Amino acid sequence: LDEGDAPTARMLVAELHAADIADLLERLSGEERRALVELQRDGFDPEILPHLGGNVRDQVIAQLGPRALAEALSELDSDDAIYLIEDLDDDIQAALLAAVPPATRRALEESLAYPEYSAGRLMQRDLIAMPAFWTVGRAIDFLRETPDLPEEFYEIFVVDPRHKPIGSVPLARMLRHPRKVLLRDIMDRDVDAIAAATDQEEVARLFRHYSLASAPVVDDQGRLIGVITFDDVVDVIQEEAEEDMALMAGVGSEVDVNAGLVSVVRQRIAWLGVNLGTALMVSSVISLFEATIEQIVALAVLMPIVASMGGNAGTQTLTVAVRALALKELTPSNAMRILTREVGVGTINGLVFGIAVGAVAAVIFDPFIGGVLFCALLANLVTAGLAGMLIPLALDRLKVDPAVSAGVFLTAVTDVVGFFAFLGLAQLVLL
Amino acid sequence: LDEGDAPTARMLVAELHAADIADLLERLSGEERRALVELQRDGFDPEILPHLGGNVRDQVIAQLGPRALAEALSELDSDDAIYLIEDLDDDIQAALLAAVPPATRRALEESLAYPEYSAGRLMQRDLIAMPAFWTVGRAIDFLRETPDLPEEFYEIFVVDPRHKPIGSVPLARMLRHPRKVLLRDIMDRDVDAIAAATDQEEVARLFRHYSLASAPVVDDQGRLIGVITFDDVVDVIQEEAEEDMALMAGVGSEVDVNAGLVSVVRQRIAWLGVNLGTALMVSSVISLFEATIEQIVALAVLMPIVASMGGNAGTQTLTVAVRALALKELTPSNAMRILTREVGVGTINGLVFGIAVGAVAAVIFDPFIGGVLFCALLANLVTAGLAGMLIPLALDRLKVDPAVSAGVFLTAVTDVVGFFAFLGLAQLVLL
Repeated sequence: LDEGDAPTARMLVAELHAADIADLLERLSGEERRALVELQRDGFDPEILPHLGGNVRDQVIAQLGPRALAEALSELDSDDAIYLIEDLDDDIQAALLAAVPPATRRALEESLAYPEYSAGRLMQRDLIAMPAFWTVGRAIDFLRETPDLPEEFYEIFVVDPRHKPIGSVPLARMLRHPRKVLLRDIMDRDVDAIAAATDQEEVARLFRHYSLASAPVVDDQGRLIGVITFDDVVDVIQEEAEEDMALMAGVGSEVDVNAGLVSVVRQRIAWLGVNLGTALMVSSVISLFEATIEQIVALAVLMPIVASMGGNAGTQTLTVAVRALALKELTPSNAMRILTREVGVGTINGLVFGIAVGAVAAVIFDPFIGGVLFCALLANLVTAGLAGMLIPLALDRLKVDPAVSAGVFLTAVTDVVGFFAFLGLAQLVLL
Repeated sequence: LDEGDAPTARMLVAELHAADIADLLERLSGEERRALVELQRDGFDPEILPHLGGNVRDQVIAQLGPRALAEALSELDSDDAIYLIEDLDDDIQAALLAAVPPATRRALEESLAYPEYSAGRLMQRDLIAMPAFWTVGRAIDFLRETPDLPEEFYEIFVVDPRHKPIGSVPLARMLRHPRKVLLRDIMDRDVDAIAAATDQEEVARLFRHYSLASAPVVDDQGRLIGVITFDDVVDVIQEEAEEDMALMAGVGSEVDVNAGLVSVVRQRIAWLGVNLGTALMVSSVISLFEATIEQIVALAVLMPIVASMGGNAGTQTLTVAVRALALKELTPSNAMRILTREVGVGTINGLVFGIAVGAVAAVIFDPFIGGVLFCALLANLVTAGLAGMLIPLALDRLKVDPAVSAGVFLTAVTDVVGFFAFLGLAQLVLL
């Protein structure tokens, strides 16, 4: 398809939704992608850009060049434009801002002044606000007569004379009331105004919790400066949920399947390095018992069982704790109850697997080895339950994201306790 | 607060949003929860129920009793009502259905006929559909005059005489056009109609991909039977992203921090059992080399390093592959490219850590052990990259969810290869 017949390819692509073209670009190889972008150079739809993943986006932006990108920025909604330029290098960003029309530039600069991952970055600046004394009829006439309103909106914000949001009217409700009714009388008065500095994770939680379609964003003085809509938040929800998973597996904070070799190596090597530290610590624990292992080699055969069961049980508890902390479902008021439950789970599983594996080892090797294995497994699974809860709770208290580092501490604890308990008990009982 | 002063507590709670009351109920202990529900028995807001997590919800439902629940069902939107009853036992469900008004019962039964996790279960049956020849004015008059319309809607669906959706008009657009304009002339013609049997993961992907606020659901004949709105999908997105994480960690498909001890043990014991199988396989690999370890105990000290580095590197690759498969970002067209990259990452990391750890081992123990450690680490990290991609791809091809089982296969592969390569090479070189 792409080789040769340019007009046909251009026509086929022109019929697609911007999001689909973005998907297509991501799936093509580097060369094909360049050819396809070149083909569309004149009529490149700027809406495609926000749909592209990080690495492919950078390539396409580089290929289009600053002039075309500046043009795209002034055509896009302000939230999409911010999304495109916030990760660029400072000098490229400055050059771009210099090339866009002054009004767009001012808006973009104001948004960039808010911290990354804040409501100020997520919000769209174009919004519709009306005074409370307007009637439904006047509001509809205003909407019909004013050109240049945002394409999509789901509610009208009602503001007081100082431009503070005091209510909101969903469009469905506006349409269902006669023209003479006052906005004041049909508006929702409990507006969830979001401060511009609010973290996006908290924004997502509010949207999800109250099933919001859109919410007003206010500045320090409480004045309405923007609106966040559900579609911005859907991406955040997905990213935040994935972020925890990605961080726990040590693949950075974003899973981009199209990332390049170098950036992937850089992302992952740090985590593997930390893990190597844990592994060396484990080795030094084992080396304390070299003499014991030399006498009873069966210990070397069985010791990975204790460590791996503890690591897996701990990861189960940890996963529950990390997600519950992120969703604010784990709080001081229920932490003790859940900790008790996890220790209970560890005890039960420790008894079940300790008896099963200990019995088998007793038959194959010797009853004392079986007994040691039982005690070590039980101790390690109880430890796993305790550590799987206490480590993320402690990190959270210290304002460290438990998803990033809890896993390392956890395996360190379960490995060390596992090997130490098994080999140490063996030394005591068997020698 | 809760002890004693019932009227005050009732008043305080009455001012809260249903979602906040649900949060409160989840954080209370079992006893306090029962007391608070009892307090509100007469005016219990049915909207609270869908916000509760599985275990707390079951308790509250049991406490309220079937009569109160049947009443709640007929007050809720049909999608929320389905959500509440779909997980109940068959006999309880039947008793409840018998107790609700006939119209509600028929609607619920029709929805329940669609498979679990399908669009048919997610959808809300009350929707607004109009013929294409209506004008904006007639549409607005209809909305104003008809009682009993859904509270919230974001677009009007345009249907043909056979009730097939042929277009949609977002409310914002309806409000911005004069009364005499025909719906036909302002409607979007590329409606993304969703078949009722579509899986909810696919529904979420469509909503996210096209930033939809709502989408029509059609039956086998293509007739409009319901509507899915973004707020239903937000929950699905969150659940699906979390599900992969939960499944990979072996804590079942749903992370419910308030689950009871018995159900948690049941959820986790299966995964630990499977993991025990892997651990026993590893033990049997080690036991092949008992004689070698007896002669060189340093091997027992160093062997966990090879296995754990391989396991962690493999999990990194696996996490990326599982998410990319779930989001349809990993397809036959780019699988080869990404596999090559992962093997490249494994080779680079294998060289980096192999040289570092090998050198240290050469100094502490002996140069031959260092060389063996280098080779084993390199081999295992390359294997990890290969297996981390190929295992989920193969499971996906076999229509098995890679999130559920890929991790077990992966650790089995990296553990066995790691121990085998290290101990086997050591036997060849050192004895």
